[in-house]
Amino acid sequence: MSIEETISQMAREAKQAARAAASMPTEVKNRVLIRVADELRRQIKIIQQENEKDLTAGREKGLSAAMIDRLTLSDRVIDSMIDGLREVAALIDPVGEISEMNKQPSGIMVGRMRIPLGVIAMIYESRPNVTIDAAALCLKAGNAVILRGGSEAIHSNLALAKILQDALAAEGAPAAIIQVIPTTDRQAVNALLTQEACIDLIIPRGGEGLIRFVAENSRIPVLKHYKGVCHAFVDYNADFEMAAAIILNSKAQRPGVCNALETMLVHREVAPIFLPFVGKRLAEAGVTLRGCSETMALWPETQAADDTDWDREYLELILAVKVVADIDEAMDHIAAHGSQHTETIVTESYANAQRFIREVDSSSVMINASTRFADGGQYGLGAEIGISTTKLHAYGPMGLKELTTKKFIVYGSGQIRE
Amino acid sequence: MSIEETISQMAREAKQAARAAASMPTEVKNRVLIRVADELRRQIKIIQQENEKDLTAGREKGLSAAMIDRLTLSDRVIDSMIDGLREVAALIDPVGEISEMNKQPSGIMVGRMRIPLGVIAMIYESRPNVTIDAAALCLKAGNAVILRGGSEAIHSNLALAKILQDALAAEGAPAAIIQVIPTTDRQAVNALLTQEACIDLIIPRGGEGLIRFVAENSRIPVLKHYKGVCHAFVDYNADFEMAAAIILNSKAQRPGVCNALETMLVHREVAPIFLPFVGKRLAEAGVTLRGCSETMALWPETQAADDTDWDREYLELILAVKVVADIDEAMDHIAAHGSQHTETIVTESYANAQRFIREVDSSSVMINASTRFADGGQYGLGAEIGISTTKLHAYGPMGLKELTTKKFIVYGSGQIRE
Repeated sequence: MSIEETISQMAREAKQAARAAASMPTEVKNRVLIRVADELRRQIKIIQQENEKDLTAGREKGLSAAMIDRLTLSDRVIDSMIDGLREVAALIDPVGEISEMNKQPSGIMVGRMRIPLGVIAMIYESRPNVTIDAAALCLKAGNAVILRGGSEAIHSNLALAKILQDALAAEGAPAAIIQVIPTTDRQAVNALLTQEACIDLIIPRGGEGLIRFVAENSRIPVLKHYKGVCHAFVDYNADFEMAAAIILNSKAQRPGVCNALETMLVHREVAPIFLPFVGKRLAEAGVTLRGCSETMALWPETQAADDTDWDREYLELILAVKVVADIDEAMDHIAAHGSQHTETIVTESYANAQRFIREVDSSSVMINASTRFADGGQYGLGAEIGISTTKLHAYGPMGLKELTTKKFIVYGSGQIRE
Repeated sequence: MSIEETISQMAREAKQAARAAASMPTEVKNRVLIRVADELRRQIKIIQQENEKDLTAGREKGLSAAMIDRLTLSDRVIDSMIDGLREVAALIDPVGEISEMNKQPSGIMVGRMRIPLGVIAMIYESRPNVTIDAAALCLKAGNAVILRGGSEAIHSNLALAKILQDALAAEGAPAAIIQVIPTTDRQAVNALLTQEACIDLIIPRGGEGLIRFVAENSRIPVLKHYKGVCHAFVDYNADFEMAAAIILNSKAQRPGVCNALETMLVHREVAPIFLPFVGKRLAEAGVTLRGCSETMALWPETQAADDTDWDREYLELILAVKVVADIDEAMDHIAAHGSQHTETIVTESYANAQRFIREVDSSSVMINASTRFADGGQYGLGAEIGISTTKLHAYGPMGLKELTTKKFIVYGSGQIRE
């Protein structure tokens, strides 16, 4: 079979299996998840042997230490996969929830029932633990899923796929509910993106290049975020201690992730005092500042920012800094340079807090909190399958509910339309 | 300017105007809507003069009587546009609604705020009243909108556009919140579909050809339905009087619309009595039956159905009929041939009613009610901008809320992430 035929067959089987996934009782879904957790523990040696093949090939290919780290299925990583499975099993099943049930003038009762989306395809890079995390969430939400991990993790992913499919089979469910694409051929991704007759949603996770490729070539709806250029605005009456703590935490607690801070905007009124106050602490934390001319004048350790700095996702210990006239200029800057990921204001002003929350168009908008909280776990979603920075269907961290939709249900007693 | 440049500029202006639309106070939005209603009344002669130009051109082009009817802005149609505007003005503003606000273990309060989608483009055929209906809903939901009506309605649509834009300007709002594409050139649609940097959502309304063209060529997410192949399943213990009334109403009350019934499935146990019972009434209503061999044996007036009949949206007084063994065969038939629009079961069985509601994957699933109820107005949505039969973002009739999304909002008091 050609790659196109293989993918097309997988998609058809997934669509077929999606009906079984949608009507699978909660207890059966949970038993599958717990069985996978148990088997990960039992087969840890086999998994790590397969993982070692990927690691060896990766070292030969000269992958960076960071890449090798992400690829490694250490005991600790496998433990966290097991914990994740148990957590997803413990979440309330979203499927079948009925809401908004109201009687209409005609006498019919109209409400909405939460249902699975159908077939979801995940395309991701490197980390093989995504295979388990994504499969668990998609299954719990009643979907079938097709997983396409990075080529450098193929042995690890296939070992995990076997455990997932064996667990489904052991509970009498179709194994095609969870499928891993068995080839590293790049053509498989292209073929996947044209299966709009069978696949309902594509979720790419990884670098901007991968995500752009998927978004530009997919005939299927895509939930995605390209990057996180997150902003903090320090208002004229901000509590300096609070502001400095939030800036430091947002920027330096884990600089390599998408909800880390990239640009600080400071109200002109407080800049002369606040910039040296926070600048000193940022320098101690190893953070380099790239600022506008006003920032440079007020905190001489600042490097000059050029026009490109306002749009950059550094993902390292660099912070762009700009002095602004007021909240309006801050919000204009965010509208022009933000990535609709996460922005926070530090203020004691009720009016400005309310304006910022209402007027800033980002998937997460915060008052007096670190941008690092923009995360499904921290938001109480239970688990997160990704973050969307486009507005259709989901905006922000996506949990179980975002892998479902709602249909209308009507309870009548013989009503007809006049 | 080329058509591409014109459309690209309209899209950029819409994106710019969307920020103003998003933060427009409810009372201003409502004043614009009421002003439009008043001006429609005041300028009725001008509108009908412009409409007459379209009607004259349409008659010269040899449009069918049905097309001319849809194109005509009679006093009655304008009255209903005015009523529609007042109804939309009376609806609760969905923008800014906060829900699901909960305190998280970190101490932050996390909730969701309803916000506009941004810029919506509507592409539709024939009926110029859609220009007013769609503009009203998009504005009330805080969006900017670009409207592209049928070329045969261009004079009518531009006259309505002027009233809409004048009303915005009179209330101090940017006129670019509502724009009508001023050319009938087909290239304008192609150009519109590539403005993914500025437009958030495309809603096509019209024939299957238009919708397929939009879906296949759009780089922007599309909410759509191709057709409504709606089913009714008459169960073994259905109340015959109720079942017949529902079948008749679903099929014949208005056969030309998407929520009209196209296929009746009858349980084998009751087919010998029910088919003659309903067949006689359907014949009296002028409905022709196309059935399987069992149907033909039980009700000889039935024509033979061929394989294509099970997938057809007749939109006229023809009904496909099939005898099935049980609810499972009925649901399998719906899964194979349905269009995810609307299906209804007529049954006295609690268990089968529950199974049908849960297991049938359509945007509207009903018990003991006419499929003709699948409509935003009948569902209490206040007004309807269209119906979606794909699951992402909206599934079923779409009202004001479906023209919005939700962002996460976080209220902190200085929290940072551990």
